[in-house]
Amino acid sequence: MTDAVDLAARVREGELRLHELDDHADPDVAAAARRQLVESETDASLDSVGDYGFPAAAAEPNIENMIGAVQVPMGVAGPVAVDGGAAEGEAYLPLATTEGALLASVNRGCSVVNAAGGANVRVTKSGMTRAPVFRVTDVVEAEALVEWVRDNVDRLREAAAETTTHGELLDVTPYVVGNSVYLRFRYDTKDAMGMNMATIATGAACDVIEAETDASLVALSGNLCTDKKPAAINAVEGRGRSVTADVAVPREVVTERLHTTPEAIAELNTRKNLIGSAKAGSLGFNAHVANVVAAMFLATGQDEAQVVEGANAITTAEVRGSGSDGDLYVSVSLSSLEVGTVGGGTKLPTQAEALDVLGIRGGGDPAGSNADAFAEYIAAGALAGELSLLSALASRHLSSAHAELGR
Amino acid sequence: MTDAVDLAARVREGELRLHELDDHADPDVAAAARRQLVESETDASLDSVGDYGFPAAAAEPNIENMIGAVQVPMGVAGPVAVDGGAAEGEAYLPLATTEGALLASVNRGCSVVNAAGGANVRVTKSGMTRAPVFRVTDVVEAEALVEWVRDNVDRLREAAAETTTHGELLDVTPYVVGNSVYLRFRYDTKDAMGMNMATIATGAACDVIEAETDASLVALSGNLCTDKKPAAINAVEGRGRSVTADVAVPREVVTERLHTTPEAIAELNTRKNLIGSAKAGSLGFNAHVANVVAAMFLATGQDEAQVVEGANAITTAEVRGSGSDGDLYVSVSLSSLEVGTVGGGTKLPTQAEALDVLGIRGGGDPAGSNADAFAEYIAAGALAGELSLLSALASRHLSSAHAELGR
Amino acid sequence: MTDAVDLAARVREGELRLHELDDHADPDVAAAARRQLVESETDASLDSVGDYGFPAAAAEPNIENMIGAVQVPMGVAGPVAVDGGAAEGEAYLPLATTEGALLASVNRGCSVVNAAGGANVRVTKSGMTRAPVFRVTDVVEAEALVEWVRDNVDRLREAAAETTTHGELLDVTPYVVGNSVYLRFRYDTKDAMGMNMATIATGAACDVIEAETDASLVALSGNLCTDKKPAAINAVEGRGRSVTADVAVPREVVTERLHTTPEAIAELNTRKNLIGSAKAGSLGFNAHVANVVAAMFLATGQDEAQVVEGANAITTAEVRGSGSDGDLYVSVSLSSLEVGTVGGGTKLPTQAEALDVLGIRGGGDPAGSNADAFAEYIAAGALAGELSLLSALASRHLSSAHAELGR
Amino acid sequence: MTDAVDLAARVREGELRLHELDDHADPDVAAAARRQLVESETDASLDSVGDYGFPAAAAEPNIENMIGAVQVPMGVAGPVAVDGGAAEGEAYLPLATTEGALLASVNRGCSVVNAAGGANVRVTKSGMTRAPVFRVTDVVEAEALVEWVRDNVDRLREAAAETTTHGELLDVTPYVVGNSVYLRFRYDTKDAMGMNMATIATGAACDVIEAETDASLVALSGNLCTDKKPAAINAVEGRGRSVTADVAVPREVVTERLHTTPEAIAELNTRKNLIGSAKAGSLGFNAHVANVVAAMFLATGQDEAQVVEGANAITTAEVRGSGSDGDLYVSVSLSSLEVGTVGGGTKLPTQAEALDVLGIRGGGDPAGSNADAFAEYIAAGALAGELSLLSALASRHLSSAHAELGR
Repeated sequence: MTDAVDLAARVREGELRLHELDDHADPDVAAAARRQLVESETDASLDSVGDYGFPAAAAEPNIENMIGAVQVPMGVAGPVAVDGGAAEGEAYLPLATTEGALLASVNRGCSVVNAAGGANVRVTKSGMTRAPVFRVTDVVEAEALVEWVRDNVDRLREAAAETTTHGELLDVTPYVVGNSVYLRFRYDTKDAMGMNMATIATGAACDVIEAETDASLVALSGNLCTDKKPAAINAVEGRGRSVTADVAVPREVVTERLHTTPEAIAELNTRKNLIGSAKAGSLGFNAHVANVVAAMFLATGQDEAQVVEGANAITTAEVRGSGSDGDLYVSVSLSSLEVGTVGGGTKLPTQAEALDVLGIRGGGDPAGSNADAFAEYIAAGALAGELSLLSALASRHLSSAHAELGR
Repeated sequence: MTDAVDLAARVREGELRLHELDDHADPDVAAAARRQLVESETDASLDSVGDYGFPAAAAEPNIENMIGAVQVPMGVAGPVAVDGGAAEGEAYLPLATTEGALLASVNRGCSVVNAAGGANVRVTKSGMTRAPVFRVTDVVEAEALVEWVRDNVDRLREAAAETTTHGELLDVTPYVVGNSVYLRFRYDTKDAMGMNMATIATGAACDVIEAETDASLVALSGNLCTDKKPAAINAVEGRGRSVTADVAVPREVVTERLHTTPEAIAELNTRKNLIGSAKAGSLGFNAHVANVVAAMFLATGQDEAQVVEGANAITTAEVRGSGSDGDLYVSVSLSSLEVGTVGGGTKLPTQAEALDVLGIRGGGDPAGSNADAFAEYIAAGALAGELSLLSALASRHLSSAHAELGR
Repeated sequence: MTDAVDLAARVREGELRLHELDDHADPDVAAAARRQLVESETDASLDSVGDYGFPAAAAEPNIENMIGAVQVPMGVAGPVAVDGGAAEGEAYLPLATTEGALLASVNRGCSVVNAAGGANVRVTKSGMTRAPVFRVTDVVEAEALVEWVRDNVDRLREAAAETTTHGELLDVTPYVVGNSVYLRFRYDTKDAMGMNMATIATGAACDVIEAETDASLVALSGNLCTDKKPAAINAVEGRGRSVTADVAVPREVVTERLHTTPEAIAELNTRKNLIGSAKAGSLGFNAHVANVVAAMFLATGQDEAQVVEGANAITTAEVRGSGSDGDLYVSVSLSSLEVGTVGGGTKLPTQAEALDVLGIRGGGDPAGSNADAFAEYIAAGALAGELSLLSALASRHLSSAHAELGR
Repeated sequence: MTDAVDLAARVREGELRLHELDDHADPDVAAAARRQLVESETDASLDSVGDYGFPAAAAEPNIENMIGAVQVPMGVAGPVAVDGGAAEGEAYLPLATTEGALLASVNRGCSVVNAAGGANVRVTKSGMTRAPVFRVTDVVEAEALVEWVRDNVDRLREAAAETTTHGELLDVTPYVVGNSVYLRFRYDTKDAMGMNMATIATGAACDVIEAETDASLVALSGNLCTDKKPAAINAVEGRGRSVTADVAVPREVVTERLHTTPEAIAELNTRKNLIGSAKAGSLGFNAHVANVVAAMFLATGQDEAQVVEGANAITTAEVRGSGSDGDLYVSVSLSSLEVGTVGGGTKLPTQAEALDVLGIRGGGDPAGSNADAFAEYIAAGALAGELSLLSALASRHLSSAHAELGR
């Protein structure tokens, strides 16, 4: 620790900058030095932050200026039975959160899904996107660029391919706004979430475009991607995986376990998730899908900022069958769920273990199947969460549930 | 550990259910038993997840079915100089993330902000909302309900007040869609994020409405709140704190430190964040505000699912002054940043330490000032992140930065 | 006509410009001269356009460079029975359109509404808005401006009042985005649509703001008004009149007249108008409300470009009562219907007659009641149109109806 | 007229219904009878409405229950010089409106466009859409339907082709939401606006789908089309024609004719059309494009309700060239302009004449070129309107700035 104290002193005296500490000490000592420095300049003690369970070197791809780690409680819900395109069988869902009642809610939903024979889940569309923006002189040149791109997709695909062995360019969609041209590149990135792969590959394709046309690249991301912002283009066209989970819950399961009726849930879903969201000008027509996405993302080393797109989901509920004995059909469709089982934070110890709980750590066989299965498990969890919260609202338990759980 | 093994066996044999373990063992043993069970039913080993640094009992308000904790690397950016309505002076910003390059990017932005004399930040609007939906017979009854509510806000305020000593009902806004009436209750929740407080208080107000009118409560949340879904109502009217940060960066700072020009950044911001987001049908007109929101939320025990609303932000950039010597003005306005310095995950050890780094743990004096300052620090961090990413894009460093950092 | 020929020649020779003709001839001759000129420079003959039924002088407040008039077929639907806040009794609805089948569809809907005992209609919110944008130095100055406005609403109201005897400033809502501040002024404009009244009054208020604060007016309209663009702020907060119409249709009326069932219409409405519009990223959750709004606007001299906001409508449909004998409840809620019975095109002969058909030409007693009633009639017509189209779709008649009607 | 009086009496006595009059009299007499009836039941006199300039029989494809016609003033703006993909040369733009100052504004804009050498205009995307919604059992069946459609596009194309000699199915895009599957059919409809053609062709394709799969058609339009509602899917992906017009205006033209500067217009456009619309949650980032679309639609017999989609437009403005001598570049991009030069109201006398003014009545050679040119003329008109209004707003600001500076 002497090293750390000395190093902190050198930063304080202006000899070194915070991010240069890694050049003068091993990562754990550098982190300790930063804690020293921060503690000396604030009223904070950072003992807990400094008590992390992995070598700091392991986090070098994930963070700079590291001081330690945050610890967030992790639990499991389930198991939940899933009949997916890639996922199959029963799985425990790992969720990390600080929102009391969330795990209990998802867990209750899972048991209802199981009582209904399990959830159907399918990935219905797939592809990671990156959309650079180019400046042209005018719409005449914009038209020429669009035409060039349409005629040269193969060249762009080759340029992209040289940057990656895993990804594959699927298509390029042009959008013209005055003298700005946006090209939305869409890739199959297999088991990687793929944002960086797509960015690098698109960079190479942009080099070709700039060399061969009069267009000038303004930004490698022109916001039609759309990454980490709520955007209709993702809600409509998808990004990452578009995935739907559904279940038909027998009436008696609804009445006995959820203490409400299919009719009440269907009405509530219509007034809240459909009409309410419509009136709110929303891109999310669901109850709390983001809760499950955020908690499973956090447990498994995904990019937390992409919870934004994960909330682009539509929940439907209907009474199936007529008269007074109809069952409850519920579905949740996530249009833009961006997940990976390799890269990002997936290699960190606790996150890797969480992926192991789902049996999908690392690359799948065939490639992409692990990420597909992962998307399906999240959708199943989201379905369980929706079922549970909708029925809690329908039976008036929301505030009392929160009250009981002391939040 | 014997206890845990035994308990796991009892679950496996169907004697106990996962969530009942807390009734038969102390929380840490129950968590160990769950790990045992999950390990035995999957290929996962959960040693790292089980190596958490707080008594499981401390997390009881935050999670159920706990098995341990996820550890996410935390770093600091800054310090950054802030001239806020509540925040004042220099602060280190704690961020937890697994996205390499993010900390470095925000850190670079902070140093640029400092070189420009610091960021101005102000909370421009405040209030946590909850919007129940009621069913009425028809629009005649809807009109009567709206009128009743307008005449009886004081009664609703009293009913709400009986449930909380901290929160205060500010106003109630009615929205009519056919025979559904949505009442958006807005509260001052001081230093708490306030979602639960608002939910419980609104529940009490709903009891009064149901007792006094012909309306029937369908759901305590009718999605005009809007919580954890992207929604224009939040982008337009705000939720939690609406907060703006801005800075005027001298031209030489832009050219020397950011290796680009005010003109290039302004053009890029217009084509990407304004026109690009417009074409995308977006509610987020920024580059990556969600990254900073997510990382600071994670470090400090906020609700990760509320990153969704945190992404409702508009970034502007303009050249100030004419000719070839203009400076760069950049602002970022977050319309719906939902933060608290009490409650939620703020009491967990690592999260509490992160709040201490900012000097805002717990209730502020006056009440609400800590959460105001917290919102301002996040906005300052978002501003730094925008400045840095926009200039990286403008100077074509995005893919190479990622490549260098090995992501 | 000699005059016209001569004048046209002078324009052709560059002596006069098209819009200067009114200075050299009476309006009808000037219009004839323009037709001469256009005929001579194109292959068009403009006999029909020139065969208009009002003195050109009467249209001077409505158009410049007049060459004549377009004639659009007008029909009536109904009568329809309305129980409104301002409208009462049976009314024929005048619609002008070139879309075959529209009149027939609305007419069929009216007869169903009548068979159900008439429609309930209410204006639930009212106010015309104009939102100038100001530039300030930074968010510190933005905060000061917002505070100044809040403290000086009375002064702004007085300034506005000096420009109009009819309008009244209701409130001013500030929105801050960086160094841009938008102030949304909302007015009661009585029986006028009120856009011009609001613009002029707001201009006067802006003069006070510029004189008393450091803010600079950039544009008298900053697009948060929002006029003639689809915008969530109108869908959420309303503009002009927010109006809802609904009806409970007995099951036998649905089956016998509409040849479908309440269940089929409710399902279709959910999948099309709610879920479909949700997936489309729409601000309009209805079938074809814009058709009725456009046709009634056209018949009555309203501003056709405001059909845009008129399409911000939500249609709901539900089965009321359980089992196999439930009735059908249908509602349509238009959030931003901008109508007037004075000003604009309402004084032109054919348009004035159409308003007379509804019994609402000119100022109402009390002031505003004619425009309220007008909004209610349009909503009733929209309800009829929705009922009819939804049932046509449900009974699979859409394409055959179009085919039969030869479109 | 005796006939009309008698017929009106028979309606009043309940012998006939309003829409049955066409079976008992020629169309003009039937219209007279309806006027009689309406006049007798209201305080209206319908002399002007009855004074229409075409045989009622000519309007039979356009309206039912006809009583006459509305007359709306028509004027011309321009000529404006257009360099288009299909349009070429100078054209007068016919506009029908009751909004005073609109014609004058567009006219001023046209002269500025001409002074700048004319507008570039291009149609960048084209295709009319119709999107039926199908019900399936669950997502497993949804996946199967999507796969079937992808494998059988040729069969659907053949089915569609049997219903039309003009239209051609371009592609079918599937969207899955739970157990609802939306198929967005996109057609080349040549010179027709194409909504009915697309509807009928899609109906035939749906018959094939229902015969060959387990899916059930719920509605021939599932609102992902999206017709006559504001929707992001149109703003992003286009409908009808996507068309862009732009112009580079020399600085001296801006200062001398528009009395403002390129810098002022660029700033105003950013704060109003980009940032203001962003804050409003808008799908329209322009000043008043809908005004031009509505007025040209009305003059030429287009569907007025489709003004809604016509307002999905983005206006950009930038200073081109550096220092104090830069020029002004302005563009307007309409994503979803639905126009036709055949069908609809294009055959009515006044409307046909207006199309003749543009030289584009009827089918083009090659097919589709007339409608392309029409879209380009409207875009040029919209550009002129934007230029004019933006500079009017800017020069008000500029003059007050001058006043402050004492010059």
